[in-house]
Amino acid sequence: MFKRIGLIGTHRNPHVAETLLECAKLLEAEGFEVVLDYESAASLEGQHFQTVETANLHKKIDVLIAVGGDGNLLHAGRLMSCHGIPVIGINRGQLGFLTDLSPQNLLQHLLPILHGESVKEERFLLEAFVLRSNGKIDAKGNALNDVVIFPGDIAQLIEFELRIDGRFVYSQRSDGLIIATPTGSTAYALSAGGPIMAPHLNVMLLVPKLPHTLTNRPVVIDAKNEIEIRLAPYNKMASRLSYDGQSHVTLDIEDRVLIRKQEKPLTLLHPNGYDYYAIWREKLGWGKQLISLSNTNSDLK
Amino acid sequence: MFKRIGLIGTHRNPHVAETLLECAKLLEAEGFEVVLDYESAASLEGQHFQTVETANLHKKIDVLIAVGGDGNLLHAGRLMSCHGIPVIGINRGQLGFLTDLSPQNLLQHLLPILHGESVKEERFLLEAFVLRSNGKIDAKGNALNDVVIFPGDIAQLIEFELRIDGRFVYSQRSDGLIIATPTGSTAYALSAGGPIMAPHLNVMLLVPKLPHTLTNRPVVIDAKNEIEIRLAPYNKMASRLSYDGQSHVTLDIEDRVLIRKQEKPLTLLHPNGYDYYAIWREKLGWGKQLISLSNTNSDLK
Amino acid sequence: MFKRIGLIGTHRNPHVAETLLECAKLLEAEGFEVVLDYESAASLEGQHFQTVETANLHKKIDVLIAVGGDGNLLHAGRLMSCHGIPVIGINRGQLGFLTDLSPQNLLQHLLPILHGESVKEERFLLEAFVLRSNGKIDAKGNALNDVVIFPGDIAQLIEFELRIDGRFVYSQRSDGLIIATPTGSTAYALSAGGPIMAPHLNVMLLVPKLPHTLTNRPVVIDAKNEIEIRLAPYNKMASRLSYDGQSHVTLDIEDRVLIRKQEKPLTLLHPNGYDYYAIWREKLGWGKQLISLSNTNSDLK
Amino acid sequence: MFKRIGLIGTHRNPHVAETLLECAKLLEAEGFEVVLDYESAASLEGQHFQTVETANLHKKIDVLIAVGGDGNLLHAGRLMSCHGIPVIGINRGQLGFLTDLSPQNLLQHLLPILHGESVKEERFLLEAFVLRSNGKIDAKGNALNDVVIFPGDIAQLIEFELRIDGRFVYSQRSDGLIIATPTGSTAYALSAGGPIMAPHLNVMLLVPKLPHTLTNRPVVIDAKNEIEIRLAPYNKMASRLSYDGQSHVTLDIEDRVLIRKQEKPLTLLHPNGYDYYAIWREKLGWGKQLISLSNTNSDLK
Repeated sequence: MFKRIGLIGTHRNPHVAETLLECAKLLEAEGFEVVLDYESAASLEGQHFQTVETANLHKKIDVLIAVGGDGNLLHAGRLMSCHGIPVIGINRGQLGFLTDLSPQNLLQHLLPILHGESVKEERFLLEAFVLRSNGKIDAKGNALNDVVIFPGDIAQLIEFELRIDGRFVYSQRSDGLIIATPTGSTAYALSAGGPIMAPHLNVMLLVPKLPHTLTNRPVVIDAKNEIEIRLAPYNKMASRLSYDGQSHVTLDIEDRVLIRKQEKPLTLLHPNGYDYYAIWREKLGWGKQLISLSNTNSDLK
Repeated sequence: MFKRIGLIGTHRNPHVAETLLECAKLLEAEGFEVVLDYESAASLEGQHFQTVETANLHKKIDVLIAVGGDGNLLHAGRLMSCHGIPVIGINRGQLGFLTDLSPQNLLQHLLPILHGESVKEERFLLEAFVLRSNGKIDAKGNALNDVVIFPGDIAQLIEFELRIDGRFVYSQRSDGLIIATPTGSTAYALSAGGPIMAPHLNVMLLVPKLPHTLTNRPVVIDAKNEIEIRLAPYNKMASRLSYDGQSHVTLDIEDRVLIRKQEKPLTLLHPNGYDYYAIWREKLGWGKQLISLSNTNSDLK
Repeated sequence: MFKRIGLIGTHRNPHVAETLLECAKLLEAEGFEVVLDYESAASLEGQHFQTVETANLHKKIDVLIAVGGDGNLLHAGRLMSCHGIPVIGINRGQLGFLTDLSPQNLLQHLLPILHGESVKEERFLLEAFVLRSNGKIDAKGNALNDVVIFPGDIAQLIEFELRIDGRFVYSQRSDGLIIATPTGSTAYALSAGGPIMAPHLNVMLLVPKLPHTLTNRPVVIDAKNEIEIRLAPYNKMASRLSYDGQSHVTLDIEDRVLIRKQEKPLTLLHPNGYDYYAIWREKLGWGKQLISLSNTNSDLK
Repeated sequence: MFKRIGLIGTHRNPHVAETLLECAKLLEAEGFEVVLDYESAASLEGQHFQTVETANLHKKIDVLIAVGGDGNLLHAGRLMSCHGIPVIGINRGQLGFLTDLSPQNLLQHLLPILHGESVKEERFLLEAFVLRSNGKIDAKGNALNDVVIFPGDIAQLIEFELRIDGRFVYSQRSDGLIIATPTGSTAYALSAGGPIMAPHLNVMLLVPKLPHTLTNRPVVIDAKNEIEIRLAPYNKMASRLSYDGQSHVTLDIEDRVLIRKQEKPLTLLHPNGYDYYAIWREKLGWGKQLISLSNTNSDLK
């Protein structure tokens, strides 16, 4: 099904480098073509795999395997989503919300997926840009987890107006606003008090960070909506915008931020039997099946 | 557009009775046919309007006007949704989340709606039933806000398992579980820490009440899902189930509760210019437009 | 130091019965006098230890060992605090917030405490009573964790006024109010959103259960204060009052509830090295010392 | 009682300048000696009052009147607390948690206080300093509301260890930690989910900002404790420390922060009848006395 397999990994982590190497050798032995981006290849000194610039990686591959933490998969997902290249996540030994393959028994888990026995899952991303006061569109980016508006240099509340599809919703003084996808609902938004959302829902989540008034609560809206944030001109300093907490943009006083769903989703490939409820239980320490009920078969469906 | 107008009101409230009477007279004067249920008519002693049993009200009317608080509208909504009769809410003088017409200037607000100048809004309901241990289906009901499972007689945690579409999600010890519609997200679920949800979203919200572990958080799922709750057999006493907090059912030890979206939605009719963001701002005390930004026209859309 | 050792345990739990028996035999072998209350003795069929009514247990013993969960220790603590008898908690194999001795290596842990090598810790209790509308004082009780006011028969909000030392603080509509000691701050109050409090603080914690307005938040006050709750006469039904969630009292419409610190504290005896921060970390899954900092000695103190 | 009255006000606010001038003239007319700091005097162009450097203000006055918002009073409180000069807060027309005198009817409210008819209230402050890796003590400061540790330049979690009186409590990954006095419990700590605390309690409050794990909750400890924060050396960048959100210090990788109660408290002077419960109700929108209970006198005390 897939011939050309990309590999990308968190840099400067010896455990990741080890798994990258194991993967690459395994895939070559199985007859796949292996491509790494320059930075990931740099972790594998003395090896001679095909390498390419990160920005061109998508041209050379049919699928990308991201090795590392959820952060690495976010990076891979932002890159690949626009080009329709599916992504597989291998964790560093500890289950992630997104990286559900364990480095143990790679052969057993990975090959079936590459041969098409997998659960395909589409996750939507956000795209955002800044409309500068001179009318210029700037600082475009995308995010698989969240776009966050927050104060710049020092700890100061920011004040802003929120509009949804052009309709005014509220003004708010807070430490910022998190706009999250369902994928991002188990990340930063959760720390800020947001709900957990099933990954395939077509909704966006707005969670204020430490709002000045106690009635500003998380809000769930349609992912078809377009969000606009206008910063109050009397904020004492520039605010900032981040994409998945990984890249940052400085906002000027009169800037507006526009956020909407990215047209192209990311495709994640999971092993058969994938169950996000099981991942939630594991990651959040939720209660397991009750012994007293466990031998009751669900005969209702 | 509408000919036969039903009227229903919170009982034994003199303010409601006054508005009911004003409405009825106004509508008769305008040539509409007015029908009240027996209980609402009882508030209007000495008046001679057409009356009918509450259970048959839907057969005699084209639209129902509910006068009172949100609780009265919930009652009206549960009744009318199954029969496709739209509902209009008039509040008792204070804006409700659902009852957005003020008793002042009724003529001006109400007549245009009855003549078809209105914003139509569909709100879905939940329906639930109990599967008794002997296989019998029992205690069927519907809810516009929420279905709640909670401990019976005294303050005791309950322990249960949650399944979604037959898949096990978690077991939980808590004071109960709130399953809410988007409409219900601004009611009891909000007190329990749930998010606010746009009313037209096709999602359901599960909010634990005082969960025993701190990682049991509100969860948003697809409204196409079917929810199953199984009570642990060692709960010390019967639990209970409520529909919109208004009717109650006792659950036996081996019962299961099944909850899903009701097929037929409720149609609410609002005056033109209806804006639920404005209602949220008013009811929750959210920040108004910032003076410094207020003369900036949104030229983005 | 102690001669007469009482033993009390959660009833009808075979693990508890086993540990009770092991304790009793061990203590007799070491020359202590062992006394059980009738109910705990009933778990040990065929054994012949000295037994006494629970209500008279305090007269026969110098120290009480409570075997079981935190709930059992609450029961023991309410009984013994008024008589100045210290309590030692042995858990059922899983660390409790209050029962910190493990059933493993009992000899090693327990005997030093009984010989005076222990950390003594005072925990205050609440006492509460109901002032009936006829002026009668009724339903007196005490609580080591919390006194809770909550709706009676069915799920209905209650409305009440709170006064502290006779000064009006607020009226509230909610599912009830939890009044907790520092000891109780890691129990029911924590599920309701209250803070964790160091056990020796002389403060009380008031946590609303699902308050109707979002600005009703947990409040910490001086334990010297006296709390008064007045239920609104138009609550649709009787409310209830619980002591440590274990005994319950029905409140009539015009009743008032008064809550204050019990004069006599409970003395808990812990093994040397007792550290409640370690218990919090273990029970709440808090982060351990960071490897990167772990070899840095604290040279500041 | 007081002869020399200091005046200090939020700069560049015309409403504040107006009230400062009114106060100054009123006090001179009543025979008091009036002293302003240079910056406040600058707001009153063309007037000729006695002026002094802010740093020397305490030497020239018996009491300080702070005109403006709570932020201005925090500034005044930090300055005066070390010198035992009491402070009176006049708000800008809207009640503050700390500034309880209204600019209306100044004569009626202010003069009795200056003649000794007042409620004296002591509020403790925090003092903190940084222990640099070379052993130097640096960046000493004090705070009436809170000391906050937070990430430096960009939005990144920080990881740190918390010790109380030298005992390890937890390590945490979060957006930072708020250490608040009871006075600060209604400020930033409240936005982060902390409880409200009676102002005279001798306790400190630790509230994590957006903690990475859901079980890191607000903690209340004894104000006699000394708090130590050690930043993990692998935090990607310098962190920061703020005093009342008003002054900021940069922390290096190996720095430790020590926080404890300042020995000298601030004395606030309030008009007779001062009731902080009334301020909480007003500021937080808490429920008023219930009509149905309002004519019931509290005959219990």
